[in-house]
Amino acid sequence: MRKDFGAKPWTYPQAVFVIGTYDENGNADAMNAAWGGLSDTTELTLCLSPGHKTVKNILKKREFTVSFGDVDHVVECDYLGLASGNSVPDKIAKAGFHIVKAEHVDAPLFEELPMALECRLKSYNAETGLLVADIINVNADERILTDGTIDLSKWTPIVFDGVNHTYRAFGPVVGKAFSDGKKIG
Amino acid sequence: MRKDFGAKPWTYPQAVFVIGTYDENGNADAMNAAWGGLSDTTELTLCLSPGHKTVKNILKKREFTVSFGDVDHVVECDYLGLASGNSVPDKIAKAGFHIVKAEHVDAPLFEELPMALECRLKSYNAETGLLVADIINVNADERILTDGTIDLSKWTPIVFDGVNHTYRAFGPVVGKAFSDGKKIG
Repeated sequence: MRKDFGAKPWTYPQAVFVIGTYDENGNADAMNAAWGGLSDTTELTLCLSPGHKTVKNILKKREFTVSFGDVDHVVECDYLGLASGNSVPDKIAKAGFHIVKAEHVDAPLFEELPMALECRLKSYNAETGLLVADIINVNADERILTDGTIDLSKWTPIVFDGVNHTYRAFGPVVGKAFSDGKKIG
Repeated sequence: MRKDFGAKPWTYPQAVFVIGTYDENGNADAMNAAWGGLSDTTELTLCLSPGHKTVKNILKKREFTVSFGDVDHVVECDYLGLASGNSVPDKIAKAGFHIVKAEHVDAPLFEELPMALECRLKSYNAETGLLVADIINVNADERILTDGTIDLSKWTPIVFDGVNHTYRAFGPVVGKAFSDGKKIG
C-alpha cells in the first residue's frame, strides 16, 4: 500500500548549492539553493525567485560560482540560505567564509568550500525563476584531490532532505555506474 | 591552490531518477536519469535527449513517474540506465522489477522502489532536451513510513557521483535545515 502526499517538492536528492556573486560595488554575496541541476553536459539550470540579492547580482554581472555544501560547513551553508543579502550585506563574513575571486568568472569563491563551478548566465526568466547558465570551468582545491582527481575520502559533500528538512552526508560507495548494471541482461 | 578541470558536468549531488512510462501498447519502460531537479514547488525539470524510448513514451502519454534509486537496487537502477527500451523492450522484467500502475497518472510504478513522483508533461524542447513537468502527486510505500512520514532509517536513497562514476548511499544526518544556521548572526 502506498500513501499519497499530494503535490510536493520532494525529490531525493536535493542539492546544497552555494551560489557566489558580486554586486556592482564588488561586495560578495552567497545564497544556498536546493532546486536545480545539470541541464546539459556543460549547463546548469537553477530555480531562483527574482527577489534574491543573488539574482540581482547575476543579472548585473552575468557570472557566478556554485560551490557544493559539505559536512564541515553545514551550519554555515544553512545560514547562507536563511539570511538575505538584501538585509545582511556582510553575511559571508558572519558565516566565517573567506572570499577569493574566481579565475574564469567575475564572482567569488569561498576558501572553505573546496569544489565549485564557474558559471556564465545564458538566460533568466523572472516569471518562472528559471536561470540557465553555462559551466565555464570546474575547480577544486588540491586538498581534496588524489592523483589529480576529486577524492570523496578527503571531502564529504552534503545533500538536502527536503522532506524531513535535514542535511545528510554523502555516504559510502554502494555501486559502480555504467558497470554493475551490465551484470543483468 | 585550486586545480581547473575545464567545463564538466560535475555537480554534487546528482540524482538517480528512475523514469517510468508506458508506450502506446501499454508496455512499460524505465530509464535512469542523473540530470535535472526541482524547478518550482510542484515542478520538475529533466534533461532528456529525444532518442530515448522514455521521451517518445512521454510525448505520447504526457504522463510519467519518477522513482528514486535506493541502496537495495543499485545494480538494477544502473542497468536501467545502460539498456535502452528501444532495443530491450523487456528491460524492466530483466531488472527484476514489478510493475503496478500509478493511481494519478497513466504510467507505471515499480514495487521495488518505494517512493515516487507522479508527473504530467508541461513542455519538451527536443533541441535542448529540457523537459518540464508538473508534480501531480508524491507517493510512498507504507513500509518506509513512520507516523505517516518518510523515514530514511527505513529506506536509503542513493546519489550519483558523476565525477567518479559511482553510486553512494545517503549518509547520516549532519544538521537541521532552516534551524542550525540561526546560531549565526
